[in-house]
Amino acid sequence: MSFDPNVKIGVLGGGQLGRMMIQSAIDLNLEIKSMDPDPNAPCKSLATEFINGDIRDFNQVMAFGGTCDIITVEIENVNIEALEALEKLGKKVYPQPHALRTIKDKGIQKQFYLDHGIPTSEFVLTHSFEDIHKNTHLLPGVHKLRTEGYDGRGVQVIKTEDDIDKGFDKPSLIEKFVDYDKEISVIVARNATGEMTTYPVVELEYHPEANLVEFLFAPSSLSEDIRIEARELAKKVISSLNMVGLLAVEMFATKDGQVIVNECAPRTHNSGHQTIEGNVTSQFEQHLRAILNLPLGDTSIKGASVMINLLGEEGFTGTAKYEGLDEALQIEGLHVHLYGKKITKPFRKMGHVTLVGDDLDDLKTIARSVKESIKITA
Amino acid sequence: MSFDPNVKIGVLGGGQLGRMMIQSAIDLNLEIKSMDPDPNAPCKSLATEFINGDIRDFNQVMAFGGTCDIITVEIENVNIEALEALEKLGKKVYPQPHALRTIKDKGIQKQFYLDHGIPTSEFVLTHSFEDIHKNTHLLPGVHKLRTEGYDGRGVQVIKTEDDIDKGFDKPSLIEKFVDYDKEISVIVARNATGEMTTYPVVELEYHPEANLVEFLFAPSSLSEDIRIEARELAKKVISSLNMVGLLAVEMFATKDGQVIVNECAPRTHNSGHQTIEGNVTSQFEQHLRAILNLPLGDTSIKGASVMINLLGEEGFTGTAKYEGLDEALQIEGLHVHLYGKKITKPFRKMGHVTLVGDDLDDLKTIARSVKESIKITA
Repeated sequence: MSFDPNVKIGVLGGGQLGRMMIQSAIDLNLEIKSMDPDPNAPCKSLATEFINGDIRDFNQVMAFGGTCDIITVEIENVNIEALEALEKLGKKVYPQPHALRTIKDKGIQKQFYLDHGIPTSEFVLTHSFEDIHKNTHLLPGVHKLRTEGYDGRGVQVIKTEDDIDKGFDKPSLIEKFVDYDKEISVIVARNATGEMTTYPVVELEYHPEANLVEFLFAPSSLSEDIRIEARELAKKVISSLNMVGLLAVEMFATKDGQVIVNECAPRTHNSGHQTIEGNVTSQFEQHLRAILNLPLGDTSIKGASVMINLLGEEGFTGTAKYEGLDEALQIEGLHVHLYGKKITKPFRKMGHVTLVGDDLDDLKTIARSVKESIKITA
Repeated sequence: MSFDPNVKIGVLGGGQLGRMMIQSAIDLNLEIKSMDPDPNAPCKSLATEFINGDIRDFNQVMAFGGTCDIITVEIENVNIEALEALEKLGKKVYPQPHALRTIKDKGIQKQFYLDHGIPTSEFVLTHSFEDIHKNTHLLPGVHKLRTEGYDGRGVQVIKTEDDIDKGFDKPSLIEKFVDYDKEISVIVARNATGEMTTYPVVELEYHPEANLVEFLFAPSSLSEDIRIEARELAKKVISSLNMVGLLAVEMFATKDGQVIVNECAPRTHNSGHQTIEGNVTSQFEQHLRAILNLPLGDTSIKGASVMINLLGEEGFTGTAKYEGLDEALQIEGLHVHLYGKKITKPFRKMGHVTLVGDDLDDLKTIARSVKESIKITA
């Protein structure tokens, strides 16, 4: 281990996760190159160098990675073959391509959980509506595209046989609906030396229509036993994957006291945004520490926090306008993070707000009112 | 008041203060243009647009300011005439040129304190060594250049008549040495609506040779009365200046229980670096809130903190190398900020470290050892 500030880090994807990673990388004076198909991606003017290119194209990813020492991602949907080739050329690729391959296809990911004794919900792979009809014992269930799903897309609840045609007649999986008490997440980091550390459990509340995280609450009110179990499970997932980097493990705490893994993401994650203000070390710094093989940072919480996703208002598409920010900025302990996206669309993640304080219940009350007062329209 | 994320902010100076301002501005998706004479200034690759130019040149500052809506500074030594002209053209210039003019010349600044009943040490303006010889009643004293002093330069302690030739035979002032208990600082912010807020008092410890802040401790251990007095005094200075923006007021807490103003800086300041992790709102966000006329943020401390300036090691000039960072990153609650300066020089400010925790005495002990272990050489 030896910190080298001259290392060149390439990040595939130039969205808000890359943007917040760059904000953190500034502190260590790290050179970050970013590649994204959107010429106006949130990282555009902040990366040391921004390449407008296709992160799913073999040749473009090879050319990009060839100029970097360490290659990482802020989105799973990248050209894995190129990352494998770069790894063979001696580049450090974190998360490693083998871990990305396992996670990127939700069918392979679920099978991985089964193979490693990691509790997860019952599921069947499907290719057509007919396959769902053959597995009605899994209803009510959740139908998911095996690949390409992102930010709430590619996921459909199928309550009864009548809903089956709302699903996907493409490679997918149908999972039996879990009767959960809470949806939770644990972010775990692992460096090349094998050092591992988890963040405390957070609770997630989803937007009912958009299938996106709307609120996040920390710390979790679940029992200590369940919280310990969830953190141990996250360590088991990342070590079974033999992965270096940051892994967000989304789980269900069931009504009968079990913890089961829903899915995971091999990168910084929406369920860790509150760590910027709420924890000693942010998830973005932790990701950098992990891929640089530096000592991992203290994940302790500094108090209670609530994170609110700022989603584009329904019915508005176009140049983003922000309402209610002045009023919100008057609230003590409120932090605004806008992602620099010019165009808003319904349910597009445009930013987030974090509230920090001593009493989680107070913060929840404030959060509901903040959610009502900030509107992103066009 | 109404938050407009499309406002273009121009910052004169592209050093570490501008860099940390940009890090904060990312959260509000603000466009920051930066101008600095050094083509490799710390803001170079982070500003939305970086102009390599002379901030002391009338025409260059006019051209730069003409493309911005709000113009601010991260260093006092700028072309004030251009800022006055820009103000007349209707641009918002914060701090206002009249405040910069008062502060930039330490002679005028001292006279301003006298005129406004703000306690400060006895002084006399000098133009030559002869003038100091005429005022030996002010010895032991501190001799300061009226302008151009920065980061420890342009300041000389004159203990006795024998030291007089160590001073400056240029426009300067000689101040009677203050028998202080502690050197302290209060950062105060004021927006265009007139809202004002102060940060809690911090204590500063200077490097004995370099005349630069070496350690900062928060919160101050001074009595509540003295702390209240210092914060009230900071408000009096900024309101007497009728200034919008951030003002760092450096003061002495004397052994006989008085608080007197040493000098002030109309910008973010080294004595507020710990606010990034140690306070609810950082000084950099507060500066942006003030110049955008947004509600000012909560300045409360979240715990104890110690800030350590990382100065270039004596005897080394050249491409910077960092020793001891890996070990430092193992310390809980330690945050590293490197400023992205390629070249180190003796006592050059290359970065800082902030330690946060519950017990200030513990942090002080850790800080002394961190100071010994991190070395910036060439």
